[in-house]
Amino acid sequence: MINQQFKQMLTGKSVIRELSEYATARGREIGYENVYDFSLGNPSVAAPQSFTDVCVNLLQEKDPMAVHGYSPSLGNPEFKQAVADSLNRRFGMEYTAGHIFPTTGAAGALAHALRAVTEPGDEVITFAPYFTEYNPYVAGAGARLVVVPANPETFQIDIDVMEAQVNAHTAAILINSPNNPSGALYTAETLTALGESLRRLSARFGHTIFLISDEPYREIVFDGVEAPYISKFYEHTLSCYSYSKALSLPGERIGYVAVNPACEDAASIVPMCGQISRGLGHNCPPSLIQQAVAQVVDDTSDLSVYEVNRNIIYEQLVQLGFTVVKPGGTFYIYPQTLEPDSVAFCRKARDYDLIFVPGDGFMTPGYCRLAYCIDTDKVRRAMDRLAQFVREVY
Amino acid sequence: MINQQFKQMLTGKSVIRELSEYATARGREIGYENVYDFSLGNPSVAAPQSFTDVCVNLLQEKDPMAVHGYSPSLGNPEFKQAVADSLNRRFGMEYTAGHIFPTTGAAGALAHALRAVTEPGDEVITFAPYFTEYNPYVAGAGARLVVVPANPETFQIDIDVMEAQVNAHTAAILINSPNNPSGALYTAETLTALGESLRRLSARFGHTIFLISDEPYREIVFDGVEAPYISKFYEHTLSCYSYSKALSLPGERIGYVAVNPACEDAASIVPMCGQISRGLGHNCPPSLIQQAVAQVVDDTSDLSVYEVNRNIIYEQLVQLGFTVVKPGGTFYIYPQTLEPDSVAFCRKARDYDLIFVPGDGFMTPGYCRLAYCIDTDKVRRAMDRLAQFVREVY
Repeated sequence: MINQQFKQMLTGKSVIRELSEYATARGREIGYENVYDFSLGNPSVAAPQSFTDVCVNLLQEKDPMAVHGYSPSLGNPEFKQAVADSLNRRFGMEYTAGHIFPTTGAAGALAHALRAVTEPGDEVITFAPYFTEYNPYVAGAGARLVVVPANPETFQIDIDVMEAQVNAHTAAILINSPNNPSGALYTAETLTALGESLRRLSARFGHTIFLISDEPYREIVFDGVEAPYISKFYEHTLSCYSYSKALSLPGERIGYVAVNPACEDAASIVPMCGQISRGLGHNCPPSLIQQAVAQVVDDTSDLSVYEVNRNIIYEQLVQLGFTVVKPGGTFYIYPQTLEPDSVAFCRKARDYDLIFVPGDGFMTPGYCRLAYCIDTDKVRRAMDRLAQFVREVY
Repeated sequence: MINQQFKQMLTGKSVIRELSEYATARGREIGYENVYDFSLGNPSVAAPQSFTDVCVNLLQEKDPMAVHGYSPSLGNPEFKQAVADSLNRRFGMEYTAGHIFPTTGAAGALAHALRAVTEPGDEVITFAPYFTEYNPYVAGAGARLVVVPANPETFQIDIDVMEAQVNAHTAAILINSPNNPSGALYTAETLTALGESLRRLSARFGHTIFLISDEPYREIVFDGVEAPYISKFYEHTLSCYSYSKALSLPGERIGYVAVNPACEDAASIVPMCGQISRGLGHNCPPSLIQQAVAQVVDDTSDLSVYEVNRNIIYEQLVQLGFTVVKPGGTFYIYPQTLEPDSVAFCRKARDYDLIFVPGDGFMTPGYCRLAYCIDTDKVRRAMDRLAQFVREVY
């Protein structure tokens, strides 16, 4: 018999995928340019030319056996060193190549990090709203996800609310800043308080509580701010990164786990990730892509469009009377819906060809997510349509 | 605390990796061309130029968003269709794109296939000698690997011996032909008998016993034979393939699970693989590589060197008095060692700069594996050295 757990998962529907399929189908009817599809978090700007050039050069000039051969089981040494050097230079860290474990994007990074610092049955705390793929990631590690609400005024962490949920089974805290879906960027104040709290809680419960920091949006921050580097605020941190967003390479599956050099068992965690890989069938991200990214590790796509889009949407939402926290980064914004039933709100918006994702899927009904990784021109037209929708329906 | 199971795995040593590291270190002393390193199964011929050309073309001509964007969760449709068409054309199958699940090589394919057709606690049978990574793959699925000896005269399956190990907990049989480490190619007779046996056993135990066929060496077969297509012999087959060997792309992590259209629950298994991926952090093989392989799906590297090497080594082994089964494919040969303690034999060979892997790691002491994916000139020199070793030591 086939596996019943995975079979039953087939009956669950992905709201985001359904919305996206609806948008595609509707696009065939009226032209996709007339469907204001804010459902998908797929980068809307091209990878930098430097990345393409480096790939072509590797393919044309380097020995194909070296380009396409197996990576060492703990990853390509040049990539690991380039990542360590870049993080050290930018954030004043002291990583060596040995602290970097290359992975197939942030998903691969989280799959490894969670298994590395939890035992089956342990609890992992995250904050709502949150990216719902955390459920299968944590379940896949055999741990249990405990969801704590973020501060609804700011989407920052409410330390007291978190502390009330920590117990002897808490192995790790899983955070995501800048945040999907809220766009919130955790402030230095939040992170300082979180670090202090985790040190206290670790002492109280007699074991280190690890911080798993999911940060694929780290380079997409607004208002001239640089995102605080989370691992600076708490030594027992595993940073999970992906180049999907900053280099617009989501399909190429490239990212890493970076283990803070001062983390408990820091020397063991990357080699353990190598062991974890064996059971997952992971065996490193693609070798060509590791070698290419190693050469462009500090480049990014032109990410400025996301801030332009955020400004247009935020201003319009405020003008139309929405309650909304101004995003500090990402390409998401997460307003409260104009009626408590966010599914109903999004269904009505859909009649105006506005495709928003109800907050229910992020464990916070009463909100909706707009992913604004789309052309600015379309964003402007969508905001006119949004005004019409609000005027006619609410 | 970090995970104790994965931490303990660090104390286990990989014999193959140690040998390979020894060979590298020794190469620094005496020149790597003088180290006869038969330890690693890394392809020794370049990827075909057609693959490089297609990659460069995609990078230079196609919209980077389409090249590097997310693959759909069940894989790139063109790649899936190209694989189905190719298998149908070559082997008279009736796959649709929906029967193909793209994976990060055979490792990814096995990780998905095993989870799809087992429940935790189930048993999976394989045949010794076998690729030892089957242990973590099966353990990662929560199942138990049961090892049955192959027929030592031929390395074919001994059906009676297998049947004695099948019971109510047997969920799947895991085979690998052409075989690592033995080089054995299962004959049509073996596969016919296996299929008939599995139908009988499925009826007797009241549930389908699935066949998981690990076939990354499918295209490396000798003597003008084409490998029998295993799924033709038993309908409940999940074929796990990798382009690592045939296209010499082991680092690019590209392969698939192909579900026989007549397999029980065939329509569910690929979508279930998509669900399994979520917990593994898999999320499809790299998009550029899927798109490129889709265009060269019937090409291979120049694989002829492996047969040349096999002939040289097989003849010399026979001449020197080794008992050895002639490989039908792969780039491995698996002779009995000249003393029962194969670790001792390999240690003595190492003093002659001959790096062989003891059979203990493949659960068959008394043998050793030679991976002959190396230059033919070096193979010839190694055979002279082997003659000297045997003459002086045995």
